[in-house]
Amino acid sequence: MPLSEFQLIARYFGALPAAGPAEGVVLGIGDDAAILRVPSGEDLLVSIDTLVAGVHFPPSLSPRAIGHRALAVNLSDLAAMGARPLWFTLAITLPEADPRWLADFAEGLGELASRAGIALVGGDTTRGPLSVTIQVHGAAAPGAALRRDGARPGDELWVTGRPGLAALGLRLLQSGAEAEDPACAAFLWPEPRIAFGLALLGLASAAIDVSDGLLADAGHIAERSGCGIEIDAALLPLEAGLASLPRDEALELCLGGGDDYELCFTAPPSAAADISAAAGRLGLPCRRIGRVHAGEGIRCPGFSPAHAGFQHFGANTDA
Amino acid sequence: MPLSEFQLIARYFGALPAAGPAEGVVLGIGDDAAILRVPSGEDLLVSIDTLVAGVHFPPSLSPRAIGHRALAVNLSDLAAMGARPLWFTLAITLPEADPRWLADFAEGLGELASRAGIALVGGDTTRGPLSVTIQVHGAAAPGAALRRDGARPGDELWVTGRPGLAALGLRLLQSGAEAEDPACAAFLWPEPRIAFGLALLGLASAAIDVSDGLLADAGHIAERSGCGIEIDAALLPLEAGLASLPRDEALELCLGGGDDYELCFTAPPSAAADISAAAGRLGLPCRRIGRVHAGEGIRCPGFSPAHAGFQHFGANTDA
Repeated sequence: MPLSEFQLIARYFGALPAAGPAEGVVLGIGDDAAILRVPSGEDLLVSIDTLVAGVHFPPSLSPRAIGHRALAVNLSDLAAMGARPLWFTLAITLPEADPRWLADFAEGLGELASRAGIALVGGDTTRGPLSVTIQVHGAAAPGAALRRDGARPGDELWVTGRPGLAALGLRLLQSGAEAEDPACAAFLWPEPRIAFGLALLGLASAAIDVSDGLLADAGHIAERSGCGIEIDAALLPLEAGLASLPRDEALELCLGGGDDYELCFTAPPSAAADISAAAGRLGLPCRRIGRVHAGEGIRCPGFSPAHAGFQHFGANTDA
Repeated sequence: MPLSEFQLIARYFGALPAAGPAEGVVLGIGDDAAILRVPSGEDLLVSIDTLVAGVHFPPSLSPRAIGHRALAVNLSDLAAMGARPLWFTLAITLPEADPRWLADFAEGLGELASRAGIALVGGDTTRGPLSVTIQVHGAAAPGAALRRDGARPGDELWVTGRPGLAALGLRLLQSGAEAEDPACAAFLWPEPRIAFGLALLGLASAAIDVSDGLLADAGHIAERSGCGIEIDAALLPLEAGLASLPRDEALELCLGGGDDYELCFTAPPSAAADISAAAGRLGLPCRRIGRVHAGEGIRCPGFSPAHAGFQHFGANTDA
């Protein structure tokens, strides 16, 4: 790729809020490595995720939505740990350096970065089939981060937002619906629950973000915690667009849909009032949907998935 | 990608030395994010690089060499900063999960990781056209890291190893030479100069690793330091395989070849004896090849590149 195209890219990403003075950035973009200072006495949390065109999002997705999504899915991992976002790096592979595409991508990325208070500190631009890899860095007090392995029998299972709505939105988009539809918007503009993740510190016993589907992700908590989890289908938030669907179809989307980037977490019953109050302050729907028990596995009595290998964009597995 | 394939991948990367107890790893692979503890009082250094098949390496490259290369080019960035390697994350995109390919890739990656003392702490595996993104994390004392912007008029310019040999090796490989040829080996198995980077702390005034070609990379030091640099062609190490080529061709490879991952650095003349002694202890060829002067730009009198836009694998530009 001729240097001029890289200079073009540098221009767009150099303009991100990131480039300015940010917490702990000793040296940002432009050297062999960034030099960063983790806040004194805090732990560093890192997560890396790749989005591949046609695998993790429809090839028709707008560059602005791709930019937003690439950062949102990574911020969602920090949210699920209760970490405070600090910095991110961006490795982007592009078939060509199209100024219009880059401007729109940088706008979607930059808008969320600015809102989340996370600074771009380094990156790599290469030519090839479109994919975007972002690594996010956050901070948390030692021992405070929310992990998947802390659920205990007797804890309650909670979920934020409207899981399934994003999967419905993707389906609607693929059949030509308008992007303004609330379900479509849920797919297009996932909102990482950073503030609520921070509010859950000291309240939740375990947490995960819902990327692969509520049932699968709650199952990861069960597995890592060495417990069983039972979801009560009657408590699931089958509202908004999901309410108009046949109940089986709504359940399928809610439990298996993926791409929600909501938080699923466990907490002792004694924390329930504080959790509801925190969600209320943030205007975030949040509901108890099940219980942790001694045993193993994840079940939702009365629900049998029509498609065991439910396909969706966003299927990602940590190595 | 069916879960079973991901489980296969997890098996190979789970076996990397990384999975064991490593410095500062509070929580490794398997949650939404890794939890890491930067050594007390030290700065964190991070660098991310993507290798795309057919762009950064020939598609015919062995998976073992790809695994080595993906980590080596990133470790080389830490070496150029004088940072001590701590942790890395791996985001790999694969067209299919071929057990043999994965085992060989993991072997090449793991062998270097083990030697460099760097632990795998997280990752992401996705399906798509082959590419590998690695982010490395290292540590250095505050203010100690080697940057590109510290060169001063009167400093001398140095380079390690045999720049140009890797580019010659790539050319030979593409015309069917044996991988055992020293030039081919220089391309296939780049060796990040970590120990020497650490030895340069307190001696070098600026440093960079040679990935895009010696002339271009020394030019980055000149630009970031606000100085000029002049390379003396008579001092260049046109040895090993380069000695058998016509002088113009050898110069072209040495100054423009890229993919060397040697260190190019500047230092005051007073540091010369200590630098030579440190290189001697490591058995690493290291030579003074030019000078920093007030002014700007990079020149090598008597050398005029035959191809201004010299093409090579490894062309990478930081965003």
